Order: sequence, then C-alpha cells, then structure tokens
Amino acid sequence: MFSGLSAFPLTPMKHGIVDEIAFIRLIERLADAGVDSIGALGSTGNYAYLTRQERTCIAQLAVKHAGDVPVIIGISALSTREVLALAEDAQAAGASAVLLAPMSYQKLSEDEVFGLYETVTRQLSVPLCVYDNPGTTHFEFSDELHGRITHLPNVGSIKIPGVPAEPEAARVRVERLRTLIPPHVTIGVSGDPLAATGLNAGCEAWYSVIGGLFPQTALAITRASQAGNTQEALRLSESLSPLWALFSQHGGSLRVVATAAELKGLVASPCLPLPLKALEGTDRQAFARQLDELQLP
Amino acid sequence: MFSGLSAFPLTPMKHGIVDEIAFIRLIERLADAGVDSIGALGSTGNYAYLTRQERTCIAQLAVKHAGDVPVIIGISALSTREVLALAEDAQAAGASAVLLAPMSYQKLSEDEVFGLYETVTRQLSVPLCVYDNPGTTHFEFSDELHGRITHLPNVGSIKIPGVPAEPEAARVRVERLRTLIPPHVTIGVSGDPLAATGLNAGCEAWYSVIGGLFPQTALAITRASQAGNTQEALRLSESLSPLWALFSQHGGSLRVVATAAELKGLVASPCLPLPLKALEGTDRQAFARQLDELQLP
Repeated sequence: MFSGLSAFPLTPMKHGIVDEIAFIRLIERLADAGVDSIGALGSTGNYAYLTRQERTCIAQLAVKHAGDVPVIIGISALSTREVLALAEDAQAAGASAVLLAPMSYQKLSEDEVFGLYETVTRQLSVPLCVYDNPGTTHFEFSDELHGRITHLPNVGSIKIPGVPAEPEAARVRVERLRTLIPPHVTIGVSGDPLAATGLNAGCEAWYSVIGGLFPQTALAITRASQAGNTQEALRLSESLSPLWALFSQHGGSLRVVATAAELKGLVASPCLPLPLKALEGTDRQAFARQLDELQLP
Repeated sequence: MFSGLSAFPLTPMKHGIVDEIAFIRLIERLADAGVDSIGALGSTGNYAYLTRQERTCIAQLAVKHAGDVPVIIGISALSTREVLALAEDAQAAGASAVLLAPMSYQKLSEDEVFGLYETVTRQLSVPLCVYDNPGTTHFEFSDELHGRITHLPNVGSIKIPGVPAEPEAARVRVERLRTLIPPHVTIGVSGDPLAATGLNAGCEAWYSVIGGLFPQTALAITRASQAGNTQEALRLSESLSPLWALFSQHGGSLRVVATAAELKGLVASPCLPLPLKALEGTDRQAFARQLDELQLP
C-alpha cells in the first residue's frame, strides 16, 4: 500500500460546507486512473479546517468510492485524544491505513512527538504512515527520531517533505534514512517538484498533491521512474515546471491545485475553506492560460 | 477593559478532560486579587487543544466566577467559520470582549488575515483584541497590517508579542505602532519577561501568563509601572529572572507555568493536554526548589 503513486485529493468546499458530490467525483477520477493508493484528509484535503464529523463523512465517502484502491486517512489533530478519536473513526470507516503528522500549536519537543506516536500506534489495527511536514507542523524530525518511531508497532511508511535537488545528494539522503528504519518501512517523497528526483533516488512512494487532481500525469512520472527510466521521469516532471514555480510563489501547492480544480470545473469556486483563498485577479488569469497550455488530462 | 493587568489562566486538564473545579479556583484567585481583566482561552488556556463544547463551558465558567472583572474570551481557530461560531458562543456566555489570533496550518497571506478580521469584526457586538503571537501562529503582522485591521469596527486592542529589551528602543517601537492605529485602540504587551519594559514604554496593558497564576506578583509590577515607578517595575520583574530563564529553556511560558500550578497544588498533575508535557525529572525538581525560594503568593 505504501508504494507507487499515493494521490492526495482536495476536500472541496461549497458555500462553507463540504462539497460531497465534488469530492466523490475526485475520488472516482483517481480510482479510474488506477493510482496505487488514495490519501484523503492530508494537508491537501484540508483536514485541519474540518470538524470531526466532516472528517468521518469524508473518510466514509473515500472508502466507498475508491473501488479496490486502498485508502489512507489523515488523522492528525492538535491533541492526542482527538487523534485517537479520529483513528477510531477512520478505522470504522474502512481505512486501509492512517497518516499522522505532529500538528502543533505550542512547539513540540522530540519527547512529546515520540509520546504521541507511541500512544497512537498502540491503539491501531491498521498501519500508519508518519507524516513529516515541517512547513505546516513546524516540527523538524531528526533522522534519529524517525528511527525510533518507525520501530514502533504498526508503522509502515514515512512521508518525507522532499529530497535534495541534486540526484546523488538525494540518493545519499534516502540511504542515510534507510539505515535507521526497519526494512518493512517504506520511504515516500512529497513536495511534488522534487518527486521524480525522490523516486529516482529510491523512495518507494510518491505522496502526491498533483496526483490527487491529475492522476494520469503523476502516474506517468511514477511508472517511468519505477521502470528505471529516470531521465524520462525527470523530463516529465520538468514539463510541469510552470506549476512548480507557482507552488513557490503561492506558499505551497494547496492554493495552486485548488485554483486548477476550480478552473477545470471539477469543484465549485471558491473551494477552499476560509480564511484560505485560491489565486485571484491577474495571477489567476495567467495561471488559466498556463494550465490550458499544459493540457493536463 | 484593555488596560492594566489582563491575567491569562490555564485551562487545567484532569484524566484527559477539563478540570472545571480547578479552573473555577484559578478564576476566583484572579478575581480576589483584583486583576483588571481575565483572558480565558488564550494560548495559556490551551484553547487550541479543546473542543468547541469545552470552550463554551470554560467561557461560561469564567464569566460566572469572575465577579465584576471583565472577561476576554479567546475565539481563535483555523477556519473562519469555526471562529464565527466561537464568537457567538463567547458572546452568549457573557464575554466582555474576544481575542483573535490568525491561527494557521497553511501559512497565511496578509490578505487572508485581513479577510479573517474583516469578516469576524462585522459579526461582533463586543470589542476584539488582535492577538499577534508569531511563535504559535507562524504569522508575522506588519505594522501596516495592524494599522488596517485596527481601523475595522469593534477592534479595541492589540496584544503584541513583546518589545525590544532596551527601554528607548521599546518606546520607539510602541510609538511607531501607535502612529498607525486609532487613538481608542490600546497596545498590550505579552511575553512576560519583557512586560515591565513594555509597560514602561507606554503599553496600556499587560496580557500576562504569570498573572494568570500569580496575580499579586504581576499586579505589583503593573501598578509600579502605572504609578511611574519604572525602576521598581523593572526590579520586581528581574526578581523573577529564574522564571524567565525557564521560559527560554522550555519553548515558552506554558510548560513552566503549568508545572508551577501543579507544584503549588492548584491543579492536578498532569494538567496539560497531551501531547504537551510539563517539566519532568531533574528539571522539575530544580524548578520546585526555585519556586520555593521565590515565595510567590
């Protein structure tokens, strides 16, 4: 489950509530494309902005409409007791796995983060993916902490925030981490702009934002790298460089992918939960033209 | 309301749920000491780790047990719709004012933060304090944005994260901000170690963490500065330097003040919501000795 392309769809909003119909459409799009897994309620799925009830509903819809594709459900929350409740909800909904970030308000210590994973993994009956995303959690994992956490029961993968851009440095980085974790735990790259580099460097999975909206495009990159066609994977990734440039410009991938979904008519506009806003004005117009030129299926 | 000592109590937990009896005890302690206002459900009140139902309950208890002391209720949340719901709850509970930070998961833009305050202030019937706390929200207000937001209706104060340590630089910093905000909006300092410096520099209020646990100690500093005894205010603050050193060492004030409340027997142990932990082991033993020596009432 924790290998190949794991596609992370948006949880679109409409008039301030979750747009269930649009969400189902996104899930069916991923299942039809044949992604290797679906990651619902990740950062792209705006888990942090939804109520527990909404998250339960989304988990149920994702499992119901994913067909044979395994579904990973994000269970991150600020308090450990909320995480435990969300883990129960996700498992009851039929999740094949869960994804947990050390979401923080007060800056967390290594000891506190280890305690969180220790408590949660003890309660699980499905495998867990450790979600390392310092851009949103403001917690920096050390490799040693990854080592300790991945030796806990039920841990199956680490979602790392990226790899160095230079291929050899990326390979060294992945290999260094691998020496510290058990052999059954996979490493998955996120940070779409460097995903091809990460896959080429030996990451078994790509936890992908654009894969949640443009699964065929992300699958082509993934399959090329898996077949050993490293240059083709890089070439396909470089063809998306206008997208990667916008990710840098707009504080990450979310607002760009949400705008793309709106422009493609796959979700209502605005689809993001306030206070978040998609691209507006001339930025949006320029992006619409670029998106037309990219001709993503 | 937005002047003098505003005391921010903990929201203590016990066996994983809110300890209402201990919270009431903390509120009564503040009312008895004669603080100028009480700020419930601030960062020290662990608002981010509580459910909406718990927050409503705490707001009601704070108002009920505060006597004549006005109560400011924190209404921060990640989504605008949750903030609006919490604002309604706080007003229904009888809050005299509300406190709002631009809490973030995805990094927010200035435009998104302004939109949040614009939407929320439009719905309020009580005044709002803008809560500027980059250490937990990861959003840096520019002075210009403070200027724009404080010109919105119902804005009464800004809670700034601190001032420069050097007295003249602190005065310049407060004066610079004051040129951008309307005259009826007060400036309140937080970051306890520099509170005396901030009050001496012209801040009208101290939004105080130690004031939530040791109100007489914080009142002595506040009253000295208000009476123009700037050196006495600084001397009293310096007598607490062991506390200030621990704040730096343990990633802020929360874990230190929670440990102090536990050591003083005012709350159960552990009182923090997991994954947060108070001081343990030798750190805790050393702090217990220091606290005895400080003899805080």
